[in-house]
Amino acid sequence: MAAMNRRIVLASRPHGEPTPAHFRLEESRVPSVRAGEVLLRTRWLSLDPYMRGRMSAAKSYAAPVAIGEPMTGGTVSEVVESDNPDFPVGSLVSAFGGWQDFSTSDGTGLQRIDPALAPPTTALGILGMPGMTAYTGLLTIGRPKPGETVVVAAAAGPVGSLVGQIARLKGARAVGIAGGPDKCRYLTEELGFDAAVDHRGEDLPASLAAACPKGIDVYFENVGGPVFDAVLPLLNDFARMPVCGLVAGYNATELPPGPDRSPTLMRMVLTKRLRIQGFIVWDFSDQIEAFLRDVGGWLKEGRVTYREDVVEGLENAPEAFIGLLKGRNFGKLIVHVS
Amino acid sequence: MAAMNRRIVLASRPHGEPTPAHFRLEESRVPSVRAGEVLLRTRWLSLDPYMRGRMSAAKSYAAPVAIGEPMTGGTVSEVVESDNPDFPVGSLVSAFGGWQDFSTSDGTGLQRIDPALAPPTTALGILGMPGMTAYTGLLTIGRPKPGETVVVAAAAGPVGSLVGQIARLKGARAVGIAGGPDKCRYLTEELGFDAAVDHRGEDLPASLAAACPKGIDVYFENVGGPVFDAVLPLLNDFARMPVCGLVAGYNATELPPGPDRSPTLMRMVLTKRLRIQGFIVWDFSDQIEAFLRDVGGWLKEGRVTYREDVVEGLENAPEAFIGLLKGRNFGKLIVHVS
Repeated sequence: MAAMNRRIVLASRPHGEPTPAHFRLEESRVPSVRAGEVLLRTRWLSLDPYMRGRMSAAKSYAAPVAIGEPMTGGTVSEVVESDNPDFPVGSLVSAFGGWQDFSTSDGTGLQRIDPALAPPTTALGILGMPGMTAYTGLLTIGRPKPGETVVVAAAAGPVGSLVGQIARLKGARAVGIAGGPDKCRYLTEELGFDAAVDHRGEDLPASLAAACPKGIDVYFENVGGPVFDAVLPLLNDFARMPVCGLVAGYNATELPPGPDRSPTLMRMVLTKRLRIQGFIVWDFSDQIEAFLRDVGGWLKEGRVTYREDVVEGLENAPEAFIGLLKGRNFGKLIVHVS
Repeated sequence: MAAMNRRIVLASRPHGEPTPAHFRLEESRVPSVRAGEVLLRTRWLSLDPYMRGRMSAAKSYAAPVAIGEPMTGGTVSEVVESDNPDFPVGSLVSAFGGWQDFSTSDGTGLQRIDPALAPPTTALGILGMPGMTAYTGLLTIGRPKPGETVVVAAAAGPVGSLVGQIARLKGARAVGIAGGPDKCRYLTEELGFDAAVDHRGEDLPASLAAACPKGIDVYFENVGGPVFDAVLPLLNDFARMPVCGLVAGYNATELPPGPDRSPTLMRMVLTKRLRIQGFIVWDFSDQIEAFLRDVGGWLKEGRVTYREDVVEGLENAPEAFIGLLKGRNFGKLIVHVS
């Protein structure tokens, strides 16, 4: 076991895009285990867009990371010391270990992982927080009906890819928006999306309209920005919009120039009787068993699939995270820590 | 019976505020009754904000009134000729007779009114479309829980006044926004609202914040504009916003200047997990029996009340309607036609 704990702390709060200078790699002593606790060694660290919010001091649904503290993050960790009989040494758990080699826990929030059921990293993706975000938001708020059209952006990512696949399983038409021809091909050829639209292509509004000849009934909102603008005019009456992320705006330093389009948005809400509803996955924590049963079952049966983008080494997490916000990853972004 | 049918037609489409010049009083022959039809004489005509939308060609949930055609509108009408056994001569009905003395109908959409149960004009207000708008939007989308705070604007009007009273009946705290001290006094002293805020007062955001010390859980949106702006920062996590009208913007000729605040609105939807949902009353037409039973019962028991603002004479409808859009009415605006 390494004697030192490498950890990546928040060095300063970014104004706009984060750069490597906003992070700092430190070494500290491996924390010691107190009564009832376990010592966890991080095997894999999940990188997710919500972490950009934690770097800011702005009020949100979770407290910001303090300057000088390790970045928070979901991990697959191995129990290397244990004073907690629920989590014996050698067991794998999903945890919130953060961007570091070692962390301690009294067991709160830990989930045992059975590597015989699925690869452990799925606990950070399709069987973890991103998968459950897709499952709960789509089915509880979006409620796609057979024959309806479901649109999702960042569709090659862990949330979007499952949104589209579940939409298909429910008999809806899935249209994915992604950046570049490789991702778009992946959507239609490997994931079974009915259509894919490249948001880096020439005329996003026209391409999206062509891909949605019967309009849009469910827009699973995780990006905002130009995609949101292209979606709005295509929404059908009674369309539903679960909102779990707005990554296109996470680095914004000021509001877009005028005019103020919020009255237009509200007028559309009224005349089309839209339902726009924000959520975070923990709002639906009572659905975790149904989620694991359904998505776990579909995964075993080969009815849903996923893709991972694995980066080697904790020290590369900042750069990988910066790339994530620019859409550089292809699949669930994971750091292999040890 | 008058030999002529006076009717007020849409003379031209307003750009901005309607003026009397956008309407024209015409006389035409009283329409003749065909097989299965009834001839209706308008007794009372309802004036409602949604009619501003019908004067515009912009796409909405209902087709615009054609130039030269009578303005549409709900009426309490008397059957004066009948070839339809369901509606004998002398019976009172609620109808969509429009802004005119006479109309015909094959019975579609007509509802018999029993004047022994409640004054017939309630069919245009608390027991009609405005009342059902309040009832369905508040209870189906807003879902106030005991102890929560419900805010509604245009609170002395037929929709807002019932929203607040039902909120109180459900154990919630009702805060009404209205224009001027008379209306505000009416809210707290006659309708039992917990607080009233005068939007013509000095600092609406501060006054509203003072009236809502525990934030806002349900905002029943029927006005938009500065009230919406004052409400947004006060919304609690998981607040619900039924949207049935945006009357502050109905006469707008252009969008407000920048910056574009729609990203701010969407960010608030996400971080506070808001639910914003548009509706029109007909979306909930399956609730009409529950509505009449509940609100009719409360009205009979004296647990809810209402106020009417009655204008004499069809010829005064345009001016009264123009005043409605400026908040000049005090209670449900009705034209006594004959």
